[in-house]
Amino acid sequence: MRIVAVRERAVPIASPIANAYIDFSRMNVSVVAIETDLVRDGERLTGYGFNSNGRYAQSGLLRERFIPRLLAAEPAELLEPGGANFDPEAIWAVLMRNEKPGGHGERSVAVGILEMAIWDLVAKVAGRPLHRLLAERHGDGEPDPTVSVYAAGGYYHPGKDEAALVAELEGYLGLGYTCVKMKIGGVPLTEDLRRIEAALELLGGDGSRLAVDANGRFDLAAALACGEAIEPYALRWYEEAGDPLDYQLNARLAERYPHSLATGENLFSMQDARNLVRFGGIRPGLDILQMDPALSYGLTEYLRTLAAIEAEGVDRRSLVPHGGHQFGLAIAAGLGLGGNESYPGVFQPFGGFADGFEVRDGEVALPELPGVGFEAKSDLFAVMEAV
Amino acid sequence: MRIVAVRERAVPIASPIANAYIDFSRMNVSVVAIETDLVRDGERLTGYGFNSNGRYAQSGLLRERFIPRLLAAEPAELLEPGGANFDPEAIWAVLMRNEKPGGHGERSVAVGILEMAIWDLVAKVAGRPLHRLLAERHGDGEPDPTVSVYAAGGYYHPGKDEAALVAELEGYLGLGYTCVKMKIGGVPLTEDLRRIEAALELLGGDGSRLAVDANGRFDLAAALACGEAIEPYALRWYEEAGDPLDYQLNARLAERYPHSLATGENLFSMQDARNLVRFGGIRPGLDILQMDPALSYGLTEYLRTLAAIEAEGVDRRSLVPHGGHQFGLAIAAGLGLGGNESYPGVFQPFGGFADGFEVRDGEVALPELPGVGFEAKSDLFAVMEAV
Repeated sequence: MRIVAVRERAVPIASPIANAYIDFSRMNVSVVAIETDLVRDGERLTGYGFNSNGRYAQSGLLRERFIPRLLAAEPAELLEPGGANFDPEAIWAVLMRNEKPGGHGERSVAVGILEMAIWDLVAKVAGRPLHRLLAERHGDGEPDPTVSVYAAGGYYHPGKDEAALVAELEGYLGLGYTCVKMKIGGVPLTEDLRRIEAALELLGGDGSRLAVDANGRFDLAAALACGEAIEPYALRWYEEAGDPLDYQLNARLAERYPHSLATGENLFSMQDARNLVRFGGIRPGLDILQMDPALSYGLTEYLRTLAAIEAEGVDRRSLVPHGGHQFGLAIAAGLGLGGNESYPGVFQPFGGFADGFEVRDGEVALPELPGVGFEAKSDLFAVMEAV
Repeated sequence: MRIVAVRERAVPIASPIANAYIDFSRMNVSVVAIETDLVRDGERLTGYGFNSNGRYAQSGLLRERFIPRLLAAEPAELLEPGGANFDPEAIWAVLMRNEKPGGHGERSVAVGILEMAIWDLVAKVAGRPLHRLLAERHGDGEPDPTVSVYAAGGYYHPGKDEAALVAELEGYLGLGYTCVKMKIGGVPLTEDLRRIEAALELLGGDGSRLAVDANGRFDLAAALACGEAIEPYALRWYEEAGDPLDYQLNARLAERYPHSLATGENLFSMQDARNLVRFGGIRPGLDILQMDPALSYGLTEYLRTLAAIEAEGVDRRSLVPHGGHQFGLAIAAGLGLGGNESYPGVFQPFGGFADGFEVRDGEVALPELPGVGFEAKSDLFAVMEAV
């Protein structure tokens, strides 16, 4: 059993949206296919991966370092003892050979893309859906039958007023979502408060159904001012108020803001996530951690992150991965996390879940298909097959 | 005044050496040349940059994102008000347009390479050596006439015994260095202690002339055990005992180990360096911070780092940049830092200083040449000109 080819292509996921920090009109992702010499149903067994959203394609790093290392490895180095399946941890060690510690960005995405494809392969070789394989290997044996998902949207567009925002969020409710998330921090606070109040009116005034996301835009004074202004709404969470690495800001905000804070989507290693928990004032049981396995060295590193934050006293139900992809959904179901992001409106075809698996009362189920389940999402799988 | 071309080439700096973490046999660097339409002495004024050592060439990221952004900018966007020179901060903003916060690795190197070339250009346009320009703009007006440098070596080689180590270090003393640094952590502690004692014998038993570097290899128990074992030697410093992002490990080690600790070469942003000072138990006046501007978004970000750590109570004389390159030397002299690394034996032609500027009593002077001074280092400049 060996890898015979690794292919990569950069594909646009441009969306006409902006958050408080960047616009997404030039955003792209790498899609990889790892092909093996195993034949199933007359075709070579192939694992697929891509890099979530928000960070760019990694064609250069993949071609310069990571794909060559994978192809240069002895086939036996990549297998578990006995040779019955690929071994993600052994493969991770091959990918990271001669890489220095620290500096967790970009290469964390490149490795995360390959790692997604490796886990897709491992589950396919085992003939198991990834969420079941994970529940057996790293969870409590049985995956969650459904995962709580929320609709992330509410981006800024030029000319988009409160009525358009409410219409967008209403659309998500019509799709079966009960909770939604909207951007803040891109306009003055008074305007954001009007937007939040308009959204809350749609949600029957229930703040637990609305999260807000500042995408790291605020300094401490602005983060505290916004926190004070939105405190009465008792929102589901207040996300990435400040720079993702400004743990002190988060800790100071957590001293003052009594409701849930969420952050972590821009922390790309176990070490960074552990620092957030150690120094960021994270309140176990209240705050939400959003590390995205596809951007942060894959599921193998995510399992290390999980172990590290559990050792710091944070329950895995506090984890709600960023990204809105099937890989995050399978991980959330298999490991028993708190939920998963979802982008019903943007980042297609990479966002979203299996065809025919509708969101009901804010929950979504997973297909019983070997692997991550990409083959059950036809628009995405068409892109993957073309690689 | 405008940029007319940006060229890049990946060049090997393979060295037959290993530290406790990686071997360097496949290490390479990107060299860039930024060419302008200004003509001096019949040639187009060109700035040069490269990425220090220890992190790989960034051909992919440079070509995919950063060089295109620089070339797509309006020429006026890149200039200071009035248009008399290029504006590094404005250029930095152009390079980082539509980049999300967090994830400081690889792209920090790509930007650092371009930034080195930009500062080389800015100093050349001003007709000033970079160290003088920096002293005037960001220092106390007058650069340090010489910079304290130490010889970093003492790598592991297969078959290299203590006699060979001592011979290597003796060679550095013969070159004019008074202080040397050697690797530890790649062999059992008892063997490292024998190596350290052999080096100390050469240095007349003076621990203040010997630093040791574990390259992030130890966990807390091993870091403490090594610290306890080497404490009697009162070494110049004990470098990167643990993972560069494990601030808690560093803080616990600092509680127990009474002499200088050094770290920071694998922290690639202001935020990461600030976290080290905030959470890593850094003892102002005792510990050494080694962030490398070439690896961490360049000098523009390094100035932010400097401001952030000074705000936390750490003096700039505590900064001794990693990398052993002329850019670090000019920054150390211009900003009045504590010194600069030097690799007399390896990483040629990128390591080392201007031709004819010998090290004397552990100090080295800088040439009075517009720019960083690359034109005064003939082996390096030959590589740069070929780009």
